[in-house]
Amino acid sequence: MQDIEQHIRDIPDFPKPGIMFKDITPLLGNHTAFQRSIEELGKLTADVKCDAVIGIESRGFLFGTALALAKGVGFVPIRKPGKLPADVVRQEYSLEYGTDAIEMHRDALQSGQSVIVIDDLIATGGTAAAACDLVESVGAQVSALGFVIALDFLPWQDKLPGRDVRALLRYS
Amino acid sequence: MQDIEQHIRDIPDFPKPGIMFKDITPLLGNHTAFQRSIEELGKLTADVKCDAVIGIESRGFLFGTALALAKGVGFVPIRKPGKLPADVVRQEYSLEYGTDAIEMHRDALQSGQSVIVIDDLIATGGTAAAACDLVESVGAQVSALGFVIALDFLPWQDKLPGRDVRALLRYS
Repeated sequence: MQDIEQHIRDIPDFPKPGIMFKDITPLLGNHTAFQRSIEELGKLTADVKCDAVIGIESRGFLFGTALALAKGVGFVPIRKPGKLPADVVRQEYSLEYGTDAIEMHRDALQSGQSVIVIDDLIATGGTAAAACDLVESVGAQVSALGFVIALDFLPWQDKLPGRDVRALLRYS
Repeated sequence: MQDIEQHIRDIPDFPKPGIMFKDITPLLGNHTAFQRSIEELGKLTADVKCDAVIGIESRGFLFGTALALAKGVGFVPIRKPGKLPADVVRQEYSLEYGTDAIEMHRDALQSGQSVIVIDDLIATGGTAAAACDLVESVGAQVSALGFVIALDFLPWQDKLPGRDVRALLRYS
C-alpha cells in the first residue's frame, strides 16, 4: 500500500489544534494512485456480499461511486440533513459536543439487500455506526465497512461492535 | 439519453415551494445507467484538453471522480469553505439572498494545465462561474464544463459568457 500511502499527506492542527489531518486530495489528484486505491478497495471487499455500495457525504462519495461502478452495483448516498429531496430515514449520532444527523432515501435499498458502507477514513466511528443504523432501519444488511484509512488509535471499535471493518491503511 | 433520463426523477417543491428538483439518486442506484452516464460524459468531452477533472462538492464528486478515472487523469475537489485542510484559494459568489463561497487547494493544479469542471446540474451558474474563477486564479484554464443536466430555462448563460458548457440532458 506504499504507493497509495505516499499520496496521503499529514496536515497538522486541522480542523483544530492537536489534530493531525489525513489529506487524501493528493491521492485523488494522482490518477495511478487513485485507480490503485479503488482496485485495492475492491480486492479488500471481494469476498463480501454486495448488492449496493453506500457512500457517506462527502468524502465517501469520492471512493464509493468508483467502487460501485467497479463492482457492477448501484451507489447509494448517505447525506447531511436536508440534502436528499425524497422521503428519508434519519439517524442522529453524538459528537464531542452535541449531536449531528445523517439521512438516506427510504426507497434507496430493498429489504434483504446486503451493502458495503464506504468512507475515506474512520476515526470516532460515530457517523459509520449511524450509517449502519440507517441501512438496517430499511431492512437491509451491512456486510462490511470499507475505508481507505483507519485510525486504530481512536476508539471507533466501541461504536461498531461485531462489525466487519476493513481498511487499506491502518494507523495504530 | 432516454436510458439515463428515465432514472432521474422530478421532486416537486424541493428545496422550496415552486422548485422542481431533479433527483439523480435513482441514476446512481442503477449500475447500468450510472455507468452509461459516465461513458456519455466521456464522449461528450472527448475532444477537450483535460489534464484534470474538477468536481464541485458534493454532487460533482459523484460524477467527477468516475470521469477522471475513465479519462486517466487526476481529480481535484472544489469544496465548501473550511473543508480543505491545506492552503486554499477562495471565491465568493452571489446567491439569491447573500453570498456563498467555495475553495480549492492552491497546489491542486499547475499553471498552464487545462481542466474540465464537472457538476450534476447547472441552474443559476453561480457556483460554476466561481469554480472557473478558482481554476484561473492559479493559472490553469477551463477547457469545458460538463453537466448531466442543464436547466436551459434558467439564465446560467449570463454567468458563463464564452464558456464551453456541455450537458447530457437539456431542459428548455
